[in-house]
Amino acid sequence: MHQPEITRRKSRQITVGSVPVGGGAPVSVQSMTSTATENVAATVRQIKGLEALGCEIIRVAVPTRQAAASLGAIKSRIAIPLVADIHFDHRLALAAIEQGVDAVRINPGNMRRQADVKAVVLAARDRGIPIRIGVNSGSIRPRGAAPKTAKPLVELMVEAVLRYCEDFESWGFRDIKLSLKASDVLQTMAAYRAVASACDYPLHLGVTAAGAGEAGIVKSAIGIGSLLAEGIGDTIRVSLTGPPKHEVHVGWQILEALALRRRSPEIISCPTCGRCQIDLPAIVRQVKRRISARNSHLRIAIMGCIVNGPGEAQDADVGLAGGKGSGLIFRRGQRPRRVPANRLVQELIAEIDKLDT
Amino acid sequence: MHQPEITRRKSRQITVGSVPVGGGAPVSVQSMTSTATENVAATVRQIKGLEALGCEIIRVAVPTRQAAASLGAIKSRIAIPLVADIHFDHRLALAAIEQGVDAVRINPGNMRRQADVKAVVLAARDRGIPIRIGVNSGSIRPRGAAPKTAKPLVELMVEAVLRYCEDFESWGFRDIKLSLKASDVLQTMAAYRAVASACDYPLHLGVTAAGAGEAGIVKSAIGIGSLLAEGIGDTIRVSLTGPPKHEVHVGWQILEALALRRRSPEIISCPTCGRCQIDLPAIVRQVKRRISARNSHLRIAIMGCIVNGPGEAQDADVGLAGGKGSGLIFRRGQRPRRVPANRLVQELIAEIDKLDT
Repeated sequence: MHQPEITRRKSRQITVGSVPVGGGAPVSVQSMTSTATENVAATVRQIKGLEALGCEIIRVAVPTRQAAASLGAIKSRIAIPLVADIHFDHRLALAAIEQGVDAVRINPGNMRRQADVKAVVLAARDRGIPIRIGVNSGSIRPRGAAPKTAKPLVELMVEAVLRYCEDFESWGFRDIKLSLKASDVLQTMAAYRAVASACDYPLHLGVTAAGAGEAGIVKSAIGIGSLLAEGIGDTIRVSLTGPPKHEVHVGWQILEALALRRRSPEIISCPTCGRCQIDLPAIVRQVKRRISARNSHLRIAIMGCIVNGPGEAQDADVGLAGGKGSGLIFRRGQRPRRVPANRLVQELIAEIDKLDT
Repeated sequence: MHQPEITRRKSRQITVGSVPVGGGAPVSVQSMTSTATENVAATVRQIKGLEALGCEIIRVAVPTRQAAASLGAIKSRIAIPLVADIHFDHRLALAAIEQGVDAVRINPGNMRRQADVKAVVLAARDRGIPIRIGVNSGSIRPRGAAPKTAKPLVELMVEAVLRYCEDFESWGFRDIKLSLKASDVLQTMAAYRAVASACDYPLHLGVTAAGAGEAGIVKSAIGIGSLLAEGIGDTIRVSLTGPPKHEVHVGWQILEALALRRRSPEIISCPTCGRCQIDLPAIVRQVKRRISARNSHLRIAIMGCIVNGPGEAQDADVGLAGGKGSGLIFRRGQRPRRVPANRLVQELIAEIDKLDT
């Protein structure tokens, strides 16, 4: 298959713990804990669950001194890099850095004095850890300004981030990644595009506060996916109201949909229509269940009829095209063979086994 | 809010029954039945269910003469335009047109002779109905061609569609919309972009055979959403393995995420983190349930803490920012007021009621 390729924006590379971000490194999947960070046991448990699902960098909120003091204990018990998320109080950032976190995320705009921001930057420089400058739509709007006279939000976000970068650079610090998340998809896309062309820092992508359920998945997939398809973005975090493991799943699905990463088989399956004479949804469910533990990169086509079925099945590694009471089974480079409907799943799995050894 | 705007591609306008497509008309949401079209009662029941969910154009497969003969009865019992999907046998298309369908979808590449295609086009012209030329990745690959010498799939798809357009035009027919769906997201995007710049026919967008569950939603949202964000696309159909009502929901979510259409309140809600001291997911669920029947275009922010909460809540029409045991309630242009945690939902709904009358 001639896959159109994504030409990625050239960005500087930083490393978050053991994970390179930017400079052509694989786009990594992040999440954030929803536990109280002060509760080390609960936080470690949640992080380990997320690690198992493919979370590659984890961030925790650090709203209190006790949360900051818990970071060393958390870090010692997890395998993936730990990022401390700090707002308002720079002393919490200093304490987090002291505890050995792999990166901090701050929004310099909500710390009181520039000297406080500088103290955090110098501490990170001394420890050799990067900082994410993270500006969200909810943090940037000048309060009270009349909407008609205010600059567009996107412009304000980009200006703020670039100003903070200049400050950091003036302090001899370039170990930076940036995020400019808006709760609106088009604003998010516009903000990242503008900053992507204005600097070479690696970018952490996300649509902030995307909401719950499918609406949140759709917003995140469009916002993050469109930017990635343009080559913009070095690490991603999907923000969904609900358990963070869901964010990791959706993050991977975005990367797989664009062939930026692959870790599981891809199933191409049709929606079925009045032509379909096999129970395709049941076949898809059964095949999914039986291959769920596999890490191979196979493309598996499961198609209901002969209109597009044989074509998709031939383009895939293995495939199935339904007929009346039977179906055709395809494997890359082999002649298709007809199989009765009740044996389609097992024959398809047998073909997968031949390729995925 | 300064919303970046989508500049839509200028396309010709056609009308499918009562629904304009292209030429600046609202992007419409389509689906396709999964029932046997020969079964009029089941098909009408499914279509009526989809109408109620916001499906604006419905397509049915017409694989048999009996299916074609059922179309008049189906059409007489539904309110939305009916499109007949026909492959291989042009006589089925002629019969469908005779039955009074509002449009037909064909892939001229799978009909035997050009004279057959011409007969369908002339019949549509006589009836004054449009034709969708729909070419899918699974239909276009020249069978048996060595992958290395074959042209890229996307190029083949675009060439084929433009060639069919020329044929139709030579027969005096321009009442056309086009689709070029691939099962791969990047191929889909490349194919639509190429055809969008090569002609002015309206475009029906979709990622074909996107699969089941969230992976299918993510593929569809990225493929369809990226194109729409670029201004490409006049009507959409999400193809998911599973009940077609799901396709209609996701289609609307894509249009709403890009502010191309609005029919329900938008909920901006954060993923919660170690800062959140209210049960935000429960509040979101309760608010969702209590506003589910509303058609207003309100933006409702439900945020866990003071980092980005007040900002998002002020940008929304109504909003809530959580604190410890209480929260702030916001309404456009009003001073925020503090409310105990157990009254947050009802106070938020009360504010919504004030705006949504």
